[in-house]
Amino acid sequence: MTRLFDRHQGTLDRAMNALTERDFWSPYPEVPSGKIYGETAKADGLAAFNARISTPFILKGHPLEYTVGNEVSPYGQALLVNYPAASAATLVSASAETGGSWAAATPQARVGICIEILARLNVRSFEMANAVMHTTGQPFAMAFQAGGPHAQDRGLEAVAQAYAEMTRTPSSVVWRKPQGNSAIVIEKHWRVMPRGVSVVIGCNTFPTWNSYPGLFASLATGNSVIVKPHPKAILPLAITVEVARTVLVEEGFPADLVLLAADEPGREITQDLVRHPSVAIIDYTGSSQFGGWVRANAGAAQVYTEEAGVNSIVVGATDDFAGMCANIAFSLSLYSGQMCTAPQNIFVPRGGIRTDEGQKPFHDVAAGLVAAIDRLLSDPDRAAGICGAIANPATLERISAARNMGTVLRESIPIDGAPDARTATPLLVAVDAAESDAHEREQFGPIAFVIAVDTVEDGIERAARIAEQAGAITAALYAQEDSLIEAAADRFARAGVNLSVNLTGGIYVNQSAAFSDFHVTGLNPAGNASLTDAAFVANRFRTVMWRRPAA
Amino acid sequence: MTRLFDRHQGTLDRAMNALTERDFWSPYPEVPSGKIYGETAKADGLAAFNARISTPFILKGHPLEYTVGNEVSPYGQALLVNYPAASAATLVSASAETGGSWAAATPQARVGICIEILARLNVRSFEMANAVMHTTGQPFAMAFQAGGPHAQDRGLEAVAQAYAEMTRTPSSVVWRKPQGNSAIVIEKHWRVMPRGVSVVIGCNTFPTWNSYPGLFASLATGNSVIVKPHPKAILPLAITVEVARTVLVEEGFPADLVLLAADEPGREITQDLVRHPSVAIIDYTGSSQFGGWVRANAGAAQVYTEEAGVNSIVVGATDDFAGMCANIAFSLSLYSGQMCTAPQNIFVPRGGIRTDEGQKPFHDVAAGLVAAIDRLLSDPDRAAGICGAIANPATLERISAARNMGTVLRESIPIDGAPDARTATPLLVAVDAAESDAHEREQFGPIAFVIAVDTVEDGIERAARIAEQAGAITAALYAQEDSLIEAAADRFARAGVNLSVNLTGGIYVNQSAAFSDFHVTGLNPAGNASLTDAAFVANRFRTVMWRRPAA
Repeated sequence: MTRLFDRHQGTLDRAMNALTERDFWSPYPEVPSGKIYGETAKADGLAAFNARISTPFILKGHPLEYTVGNEVSPYGQALLVNYPAASAATLVSASAETGGSWAAATPQARVGICIEILARLNVRSFEMANAVMHTTGQPFAMAFQAGGPHAQDRGLEAVAQAYAEMTRTPSSVVWRKPQGNSAIVIEKHWRVMPRGVSVVIGCNTFPTWNSYPGLFASLATGNSVIVKPHPKAILPLAITVEVARTVLVEEGFPADLVLLAADEPGREITQDLVRHPSVAIIDYTGSSQFGGWVRANAGAAQVYTEEAGVNSIVVGATDDFAGMCANIAFSLSLYSGQMCTAPQNIFVPRGGIRTDEGQKPFHDVAAGLVAAIDRLLSDPDRAAGICGAIANPATLERISAARNMGTVLRESIPIDGAPDARTATPLLVAVDAAESDAHEREQFGPIAFVIAVDTVEDGIERAARIAEQAGAITAALYAQEDSLIEAAADRFARAGVNLSVNLTGGIYVNQSAAFSDFHVTGLNPAGNASLTDAAFVANRFRTVMWRRPAA
Repeated sequence: MTRLFDRHQGTLDRAMNALTERDFWSPYPEVPSGKIYGETAKADGLAAFNARISTPFILKGHPLEYTVGNEVSPYGQALLVNYPAASAATLVSASAETGGSWAAATPQARVGICIEILARLNVRSFEMANAVMHTTGQPFAMAFQAGGPHAQDRGLEAVAQAYAEMTRTPSSVVWRKPQGNSAIVIEKHWRVMPRGVSVVIGCNTFPTWNSYPGLFASLATGNSVIVKPHPKAILPLAITVEVARTVLVEEGFPADLVLLAADEPGREITQDLVRHPSVAIIDYTGSSQFGGWVRANAGAAQVYTEEAGVNSIVVGATDDFAGMCANIAFSLSLYSGQMCTAPQNIFVPRGGIRTDEGQKPFHDVAAGLVAAIDRLLSDPDRAAGICGAIANPATLERISAARNMGTVLRESIPIDGAPDARTATPLLVAVDAAESDAHEREQFGPIAFVIAVDTVEDGIERAARIAEQAGAITAALYAQEDSLIEAAADRFARAGVNLSVNLTGGIYVNQSAAFSDFHVTGLNPAGNASLTDAAFVANRFRTVMWRRPAA
């Protein structure tokens, strides 16, 4: 039972070390290169993806009461994949029946299997890239990284954290309490007991990256897992479930420890899953509105959420105006602003800012940002490779509505050369904080506001208050004075937002690296949990003892 | 700011080591001896307690809108202490206003102060013993241990666990991600951010032991704490609040970081506290009925509970019949069964059991238990020192009602020589599991059932099912076959109950030792949390980062 644990122990040890060091570390190469993944890996991955199209997705032995599947690629293609589906009651019942042997397995056995699943997912990263690209609209390179290696990193992070937590208490000890000249001597034995059935509710835009932490944290700690994909992004999680079931069966465990809960509009089952009394753990990524419903209706189940937020950049001063504008332009453009970490608001003092190019009035700062976006996206191929496509048609409607919320600084337009794809470059709208509050609500997609404020301090305070009220996952600041940076760090910490300062070059506020950056703090409405801290895993299992007088 | 941390670092280091070793360890001596606590400590403690009687309890600078206080000792004396009181709104507002400097203090500063508070509480253990004795009805020796050193142990355990969690992530790191021949280099800074206002709801029977873990876990992690005592057991927690406020003020922090929320029948404020939207954390010990209300009405606040349960002993076989009976007799008699860990149900096979004294029929086993209780309590002074007094008059009514639930094997009677005290020795009632389900509900107090079952396996299954349905904190088994012991360990683990096997001599199923035994598993209705595991503290704070390119 420890063969897979032995195979992956080196990886696990390095992962656990990385959790405490928090320097850069990743076991899964992020470069989609044939030199790393094999010369035919890219072609094989595309072929594997194409073979899925217009066919039933077979999950051997999986509950099947009907089939669902209406995915349409934001790049135009209808996937026409049919997935096995069953009612929430059937799925929960099947999941609950599997628990015995998995719960009784050692943490080592479970962790070995989890890392083997991740290793096999890594091998299939090109297939996954195509699946993620054509369900989320991510550009290919991003779909490879975020859908493949970076999601696997986050999964491994959860497994390592789970292992660290499960092994904190020894499995047995002799307890010796002195009593005068004698002692009471008791042998004690502890075991890890899972909570039961776990449900992971995925989102449309990052189906694997956002689901793997909950999935692997629950699985490693002995729970069975029902994976509930967003109806528009089933394929990446169906592949994940397929890989997990294959490894589990090879190792002698029931396949149904990991189930797919596919649904489609008109036949939704998420609410039934959330309300089911046998569900003990729920991980949710998605809108705040439905997240609120999940939190209110989960009963005694534990709920870990990542919900929506309004991320802000406060521009106070810079010694690299061009670098700042280029950096922000990329953050706004990447995946057309559909990242939960993408900035929406750019606060700029009405009186302008000091820069290496001299004092810049508000409108010159705005113009600099527009020019940087235009430059970044001037080549249609590059634009397509950065922006990708729009996951949801409603986003285009939001762009239209946002045009009327202020003065349009930069129009959002489709990207040339991809007529079948639903695309949109960033819309930039100027508003004055004294006159508008449109920017205080989430406008999901490629919509950003350049907001005139009194001072940089005013911008920080407004950004932090929006985070406290509407949630925020990221914040950024451009400033030159240390005292201002420290004050901003204090204020955003109180608002529960991770802050990036003076980013230029190849690092962006959107980025959250496994094993170093905690994703979401759990301290504002953008989510109640953090990927992947101890609290994210420590309560997914319980520790139970038996004891007796030592022989 | 690290003076107190430096003073107590040796204690903290040993405590953190004990958390992982889980062997016996305690820094606070449990023996109420003048040689340890000072020759005058006992008299001084009694004098300090007596000085409280019939006087206002002064908490300098504490919110005071009115006074409350109707405590009457189960030993007869009316305490006539008046406590400062204020509305929930006033208390939460005062608590929320204190947070800034405490939240900004280092984990070291906070932990140093917490251990200093515990050290000062330890010095006052004799005063506390009298306060606990005359609010809970515990006998003096138990009130000293459970109300003093053992409660302090549990508080320190929470502080050490909190410190371990807060320091898992470095406060800063340089993150270096290779990029071809170059690297992206980012400096990252993390800080611990508390959740906000924490409320600790105490119980009547163990006001300090059950409250200290939540109190100190929340305080150490930077939250402000409102201590809500049971209206019948205010004094022990008022003394605790007094000590905490004194140390906080000495160290330059606001006294109102720790507030007393005293109330009395007719002017209850617990529901207002639980429903207050600014309350972020709630620790609750008490009935399942009110616990269910707390869990349902706490909104977004985190809730950690210990609720009620039905604890069982399964008697299958023993090689020390006399030792077994004596051990069970003590467990039933100690504090008249008013411990959350006290057994209520004793399952015995209808056909009897094998013992070192030969095969014992069911009624001989029952008779052995009765005789052991009678022997233990034959001397009135010793009986008083073991049983103490009954905290709540309703317990006497439950004893009366229980007499009609089966065949009375042993009558519950008052203890001679203490006419003013409300006392009751254990009632033993025989029932047959085939004919009765009276034992499946909690009968709080000195009420126990000897229940005839088919076999020992039948008893284990019934005990485990009761735990799953009604909750249980402890279970005990007497058996000689290892395979049976293992099967019972498996079954009780699934039911989330810690199991003690073949206890005889000076260790009892009721006992739960800090730094070794986790108290409550969180896996059945007896509570959703465990004292004191990582999950109990890790989510009371969040980790927030700021980062920038390294210089």
